[in-house]
Amino acid sequence: METMKALVFHGPGLKSWDDVPKPTIQRPTDVIVKIETTTICGTDLHILKGDVPAVTDGRILGHEGIGTVVETGDAVETLSVGDRVLISCISACGRCEFCKKGIYSHCLGDEGASGIGWIFGHLIDGTQAEFVRVPYAETSVYRLPDSVSDRDAVMLSDILPTGHEIGVKYGHVKPGDVVAVIGAGPVGLAAMMTAQLYGPSRVIAVDLDENRLQQSLQFGATHTVVSGEGAKERVLALTDGLGVDVAIEAVGVPPTLGLALQLARPGGVIANVGVHGKPVELPIQDLWIQNITLTTGLVNTDTTDMLLKMVESGKLAAAKFASHEFALGEILEAYDVFSRAAETKALKVVMQA
Amino acid sequence: METMKALVFHGPGLKSWDDVPKPTIQRPTDVIVKIETTTICGTDLHILKGDVPAVTDGRILGHEGIGTVVETGDAVETLSVGDRVLISCISACGRCEFCKKGIYSHCLGDEGASGIGWIFGHLIDGTQAEFVRVPYAETSVYRLPDSVSDRDAVMLSDILPTGHEIGVKYGHVKPGDVVAVIGAGPVGLAAMMTAQLYGPSRVIAVDLDENRLQQSLQFGATHTVVSGEGAKERVLALTDGLGVDVAIEAVGVPPTLGLALQLARPGGVIANVGVHGKPVELPIQDLWIQNITLTTGLVNTDTTDMLLKMVESGKLAAAKFASHEFALGEILEAYDVFSRAAETKALKVVMQA
Amino acid sequence: METMKALVFHGPGLKSWDDVPKPTIQRPTDVIVKIETTTICGTDLHILKGDVPAVTDGRILGHEGIGTVVETGDAVETLSVGDRVLISCISACGRCEFCKKGIYSHCLGDEGASGIGWIFGHLIDGTQAEFVRVPYAETSVYRLPDSVSDRDAVMLSDILPTGHEIGVKYGHVKPGDVVAVIGAGPVGLAAMMTAQLYGPSRVIAVDLDENRLQQSLQFGATHTVVSGEGAKERVLALTDGLGVDVAIEAVGVPPTLGLALQLARPGGVIANVGVHGKPVELPIQDLWIQNITLTTGLVNTDTTDMLLKMVESGKLAAAKFASHEFALGEILEAYDVFSRAAETKALKVVMQA
Amino acid sequence: METMKALVFHGPGLKSWDDVPKPTIQRPTDVIVKIETTTICGTDLHILKGDVPAVTDGRILGHEGIGTVVETGDAVETLSVGDRVLISCISACGRCEFCKKGIYSHCLGDEGASGIGWIFGHLIDGTQAEFVRVPYAETSVYRLPDSVSDRDAVMLSDILPTGHEIGVKYGHVKPGDVVAVIGAGPVGLAAMMTAQLYGPSRVIAVDLDENRLQQSLQFGATHTVVSGEGAKERVLALTDGLGVDVAIEAVGVPPTLGLALQLARPGGVIANVGVHGKPVELPIQDLWIQNITLTTGLVNTDTTDMLLKMVESGKLAAAKFASHEFALGEILEAYDVFSRAAETKALKVVMQA
Repeated sequence: METMKALVFHGPGLKSWDDVPKPTIQRPTDVIVKIETTTICGTDLHILKGDVPAVTDGRILGHEGIGTVVETGDAVETLSVGDRVLISCISACGRCEFCKKGIYSHCLGDEGASGIGWIFGHLIDGTQAEFVRVPYAETSVYRLPDSVSDRDAVMLSDILPTGHEIGVKYGHVKPGDVVAVIGAGPVGLAAMMTAQLYGPSRVIAVDLDENRLQQSLQFGATHTVVSGEGAKERVLALTDGLGVDVAIEAVGVPPTLGLALQLARPGGVIANVGVHGKPVELPIQDLWIQNITLTTGLVNTDTTDMLLKMVESGKLAAAKFASHEFALGEILEAYDVFSRAAETKALKVVMQA
Repeated sequence: METMKALVFHGPGLKSWDDVPKPTIQRPTDVIVKIETTTICGTDLHILKGDVPAVTDGRILGHEGIGTVVETGDAVETLSVGDRVLISCISACGRCEFCKKGIYSHCLGDEGASGIGWIFGHLIDGTQAEFVRVPYAETSVYRLPDSVSDRDAVMLSDILPTGHEIGVKYGHVKPGDVVAVIGAGPVGLAAMMTAQLYGPSRVIAVDLDENRLQQSLQFGATHTVVSGEGAKERVLALTDGLGVDVAIEAVGVPPTLGLALQLARPGGVIANVGVHGKPVELPIQDLWIQNITLTTGLVNTDTTDMLLKMVESGKLAAAKFASHEFALGEILEAYDVFSRAAETKALKVVMQA
Repeated sequence: METMKALVFHGPGLKSWDDVPKPTIQRPTDVIVKIETTTICGTDLHILKGDVPAVTDGRILGHEGIGTVVETGDAVETLSVGDRVLISCISACGRCEFCKKGIYSHCLGDEGASGIGWIFGHLIDGTQAEFVRVPYAETSVYRLPDSVSDRDAVMLSDILPTGHEIGVKYGHVKPGDVVAVIGAGPVGLAAMMTAQLYGPSRVIAVDLDENRLQQSLQFGATHTVVSGEGAKERVLALTDGLGVDVAIEAVGVPPTLGLALQLARPGGVIANVGVHGKPVELPIQDLWIQNITLTTGLVNTDTTDMLLKMVESGKLAAAKFASHEFALGEILEAYDVFSRAAETKALKVVMQA
Repeated sequence: METMKALVFHGPGLKSWDDVPKPTIQRPTDVIVKIETTTICGTDLHILKGDVPAVTDGRILGHEGIGTVVETGDAVETLSVGDRVLISCISACGRCEFCKKGIYSHCLGDEGASGIGWIFGHLIDGTQAEFVRVPYAETSVYRLPDSVSDRDAVMLSDILPTGHEIGVKYGHVKPGDVVAVIGAGPVGLAAMMTAQLYGPSRVIAVDLDENRLQQSLQFGATHTVVSGEGAKERVLALTDGLGVDVAIEAVGVPPTLGLALQLARPGGVIANVGVHGKPVELPIQDLWIQNITLTTGLVNTDTTDMLLKMVESGKLAAAKFASHEFALGEILEAYDVFSRAAETKALKVVMQA
């Protein structure tokens, strides 16, 4: 049995760069991809903290990556050995009821048997490895044009689609809108960057960290507001006093969602992107009359194709998210840097084989 | 000074059928309407309980009605004395930013100085009277074809647009959808009736009251479910197990909104129509990944024109809501019957001059 | 080699019920279906006239059918031998750019190598046979609930999706709309029937044949208008004089498209469903200022799932289209009856094995 | 009677800068505006050629302008003497059926009695004058923020809303789209500029004139193609070979509309903005199967508010269209320069009082 190196989860707080068996084709619709570039997601840190019990000891982490097809299942017709591909954080069977509607996030395919499209590094082995088995390959990976670099492309595995779909699209950002993005971490910045595709008149970044606020201005924000006491008033002062058209929550704690709910004007939208761990109090006694819409969601990656076109045409500077680079074998160090983002100013750490 | 009869609010719990001055034109865009038919809304009962502090002693109640124009302001060109009109619960100035977007519910016109389109029987005198002054008349009333009866038309002042716009339209009901309507009172029934305009495959009525559930079947429900313990499971048994496409909340208390949040499938919508008095706990720790949309709203009446066309063409049996009839002078008795709806089985009580 | 019976095209005007080899699995994504019910489309008659040169001698005709899976390719996971399925007139590879957008009509899959989703009885052998090979099976067929009859289901292979998608959906029929359907043949009737899912206030059937106009009233039309001289005026008399919201063309000749272009009001839509053989003069000198939308299309069958749900829930009486029934072996007689529809009053002729 | 200067039409080929009576309030909803900045539209040249017979001898031309309110009708509440306003080419009564739907282009208001929203310099006196009477003022003019210059604002009277609404919005330009704009005159450039609000991946300018093509690159075009023989192939070479997502026609002659019809891919849109004088042959025998949408329209100016916000936020460089400047009294010279645009390279000529 051939082996390879991979980043393996061994229970809360425990991970290592192990020798493990190389993956093999299990279904005729699989391909095997040799990973050339990968990165780490905030979700990987959650898993390591033990917040995602479905991830068990022995699981290879990672759901983002770029690589080359090295083997294809018997039913695979549109991908060939040698194709350079983008692996998506969502695996879509392409034939269930949800996939037919583009809600790949809730794919009913039986890989992982979970009713959820996020399976890499969660319910099946992931991309932080030398090789990965990719199920439903023809409906889940994207062939990459030569002109798109790995550093750009890897931002399309998860972070840009997430900010775009769950923040901007679910938020219905339209030309002329005033948009507030609460949380200027990587996902919030991804929402700011992709909001530009919809012609907002103002994008207000809201965060506690002055450094992040400054950085926001490079990602599409036109104004910044320090969060905390008085943040609502500071945001409203940048609108006509009635509130923003769209408030995007990209943190995942009750106070930030609470702020988002206060910022939206009548007829406005609050798009929740943050991953939450506990309930929030919904002031429905005030909101019922406000004609607001609140949306939530896991990324569908149904816009990955479009985002890839925008990167290819030079209109989306995806690689801007790459703050640090490592060799794949330095992944433990990369985890360390990424986990201390406040200090290291890491956005996305990129590892290349 | 000429006088007329009107139902006047005198503080919590107090109302009377008083002699009051007849209204007069105050602005060039006003008309005066002689009321021929009016009705009572659940909101009127809330006002009488003291739940709406903006309504003060001396206010004439009512925001629904049909009548004849008896006087027009100098700027009124498209309405004439003698025109039979439908008065809408929402007054729309037609020129503010919200009106231009069809969000008449948040009209910024200065009548009532409130930033809200519901002003009749709230911030200015209402329609439970022999005459009413109607501001912004040309953008707020609808001329009625002879073929539409008062009993049909008066259901278009509030209840049918509310069920339709805030329940069905905000809920994005589409052909094939499975829809649950929680609460089979008048507004819930209005949602069931108007959901038929969008081709749902199933409409599941959920209520505690068996009589109301039976009645639902006359208003478009295809299935009924008794609420309370096990309701969620009973509803899911009528879907593919994944939940409904749209859950419409038409009660306004935490448990029913809580149930609605549990019923929606991934990608589904929860449309809150109920008027709430206190916060609810939003299980965002579960919902963030569910790709759901929650909407709220006060009726815009931007679909009144369309609903009127459907009534005129015989496709919307609006008058079905008229459970009891009274003379206008019997309004105190009508209030009594309507306030004991569980017992009297009242849906809408209609009063005719 | 096993043989079966099939209706084979032998060049313009020539067809026969031949013994031919039974189809076999060619790709791992194929299934073989034993046909139990099939029908004939107007397109089949066009082929027989020689209007579709891509169809060559030896081709088995037919693109509609219901049957049972008798063999599955190696990659097929969600269909099993014994499954009763609906075969769609469109084959969708499920992984090309058009399929991902739901434009299955322009599937780029290489079966037939055509850039078009309609391949059965056109570029590959079709369904008017005892058995058929179905490519891209998991993304192209629909498992049928027991409660849906073959007679109902076979109307979902082509005619109901076509009328619905290309007439009603592309026409953007909305609640309250006045809709004119020009041509009361099977496809026009399918548009009338499925328009009901969108709450039109009026549906005006326009045709030369009084018998068809009468029949229209059973399929959702509320008014009928005899076509020819004065038809425009007769339709406008049924609107407010400004024209219809949606005009659906379901004939395919210049005068009927010309009429459709005259009937639409400003802001209205003309949805062309008819298959045209020659150009029409577009009066753009009048239309440029009219804010109209003209749409065309081959059916996508992206709404077949939804229509099936409506049939299952008893809300779409699909079987109403079945005017004549034959045994599969009587297919030549069925063709004769269908080709003389004006005389036989045939809508859809159903053949059962 | 007070007089003023105005540009008066005296029949085909004849115009003069005359002394005429100053306009006065005629209805309570009117305002009188002192013109500070105006411009000339291609339509004015058409009128002068005699192409618009509804314009009769004595009519003051012009439908674009910026000025100050100097008098208000009795019913006007939200505009005051001294307000600086943008006059729209479309007058909207705000209360007819079309206005309620935002189709102001087909306003049924009785000013001009025409069933069309464009009445200035057409059916009533226009803006190429020292003063103008503005009907339906509260629903037709826009108060200007101090930060927006006249040179920017006057481009919002007609050209930018036209390019945006009839080209880009009717064309449904979406993120990632490849858009071809045929005709790089002022309206085509307005479409290119406003297409940027929707995130296209490529904008291909198509024109005969190399100078205009070069200029296109300043207005948002990413690629240029010389029209004429082989243009179709040159455009397709810039797509994946299947055609563009959106083709915007901004010329108004049969060959350019013909080209647009050939450029759109399956599922694509052709948005006609050009003003046409004769019919075109529609190749419906090819298009019926192409799933295309063709739209036409006169500008609604329902997006003027939004475009104004974008100008105010510095995101739309509207003044870029101002190629030449004149004093208002030099209007005859301005007409001369504008009418020789090919030679003078005029885009919009701006006249200031």
